[in-house]
Amino acid sequence: MKSYTEYLWFNTEKRREYIRITDKVREACKKSGIKEGFILVSAMHISAGVFVNDNESGILKDIDNMLEKIAPFGPDYNHHRTGEDNGDAHLKSILVHHQVIVPVTDGDLDLGPWQEIFYAEFDGRRRKRVIIKVIGE
Amino acid sequence: MKSYTEYLWFNTEKRREYIRITDKVREACKKSGIKEGFILVSAMHISAGVFVNDNESGILKDIDNMLEKIAPFGPDYNHHRTGEDNGDAHLKSILVHHQVIVPVTDGDLDLGPWQEIFYAEFDGRRRKRVIIKVIGE
Amino acid sequence: MKSYTEYLWFNTEKRREYIRITDKVREACKKSGIKEGFILVSAMHISAGVFVNDNESGILKDIDNMLEKIAPFGPDYNHHRTGEDNGDAHLKSILVHHQVIVPVTDGDLDLGPWQEIFYAEFDGRRRKRVIIKVIGE
Repeated sequence: MKSYTEYLWFNTEKRREYIRITDKVREACKKSGIKEGFILVSAMHISAGVFVNDNESGILKDIDNMLEKIAPFGPDYNHHRTGEDNGDAHLKSILVHHQVIVPVTDGDLDLGPWQEIFYAEFDGRRRKRVIIKVIGE
Repeated sequence: MKSYTEYLWFNTEKRREYIRITDKVREACKKSGIKEGFILVSAMHISAGVFVNDNESGILKDIDNMLEKIAPFGPDYNHHRTGEDNGDAHLKSILVHHQVIVPVTDGDLDLGPWQEIFYAEFDGRRRKRVIIKVIGE
Repeated sequence: MKSYTEYLWFNTEKRREYIRITDKVREACKKSGIKEGFILVSAMHISAGVFVNDNESGILKDIDNMLEKIAPFGPDYNHHRTGEDNGDAHLKSILVHHQVIVPVTDGDLDLGPWQEIFYAEFDGRRRKRVIIKVIGE
């Protein structure tokens, strides 16, 4: 079994951003030299997520609207008694999930025609990380 | 390390359907000959999901009701400016997640007593795919 | 490829509880002797979840509040026609997801600074299980 690990850094300008990272994940796949296996793409923060969906600006806005409706920025969450103001970001992270597994087949990402990988920043403007870890053979 | 890959095709009659695929996943597990490892079961479309829950028609209806309450079919989503009408399906896919990992122990799916694997179609009536990929030894 | 499997048992006092299990997962990682790989931490019941978030009592309460708002305990879910009263627990399990993958790098959990692993019990007061399965080398 082979493995390969890489970290992506982000420092977004806006509080919330959805950043396409499919090419970065593909590069890691190629560097790993792995032909058959799994790639874990996982946020290393509790106020961010990783998801697979469509690279279309409208649906990314719809996702943001849905998350903001369920877990809006601003209200007096219990978490804010610690001095934080990012309770919504934690809840959004739970809802979209913080990670995906991308299958590797024949040395490439085995994604469907419209599947793209996104980093979801819910509390940005500071340095945050995603781990990409490939295992296989 | 061994690996085995299979694709399931679906073409549902209804727009939304929840289809039990535990037996298909178990067959793939047996064909792989893998005794200890992981099976990834992952939708290859951005308007479908895969989840583990109870094979009971009432709860499947409750899941559908919950998703329809949060992300109803019909409204004027931003995504619809592209000519699509399936914004709700993308959002439902995000909420239930598009994939699961099933552990393989002693050559079989290591599921709890009530755990069944479901393909969740949110925008059907056309051919769509799920990847089953087993890695292990 | 090496693998290691362990089961955690829970029997909570309250119906809903969020239990930090990071140390148990780390112990399993050490016992496995695996240096590079993946750990699957997965609830074996359809009324429980596993998630990664902050070990801070306020945010755990906020997560519970959000889940209770979307899928409250009590209403007459379709699932209850079977005689069950835990429809909400199934829905909560779907929303938080029932599993996570923890990357293993250099023989330890490769988590971000604030990431902790939680077992989410949504229908407790009886014996329930989580599988921890490590694969790698």
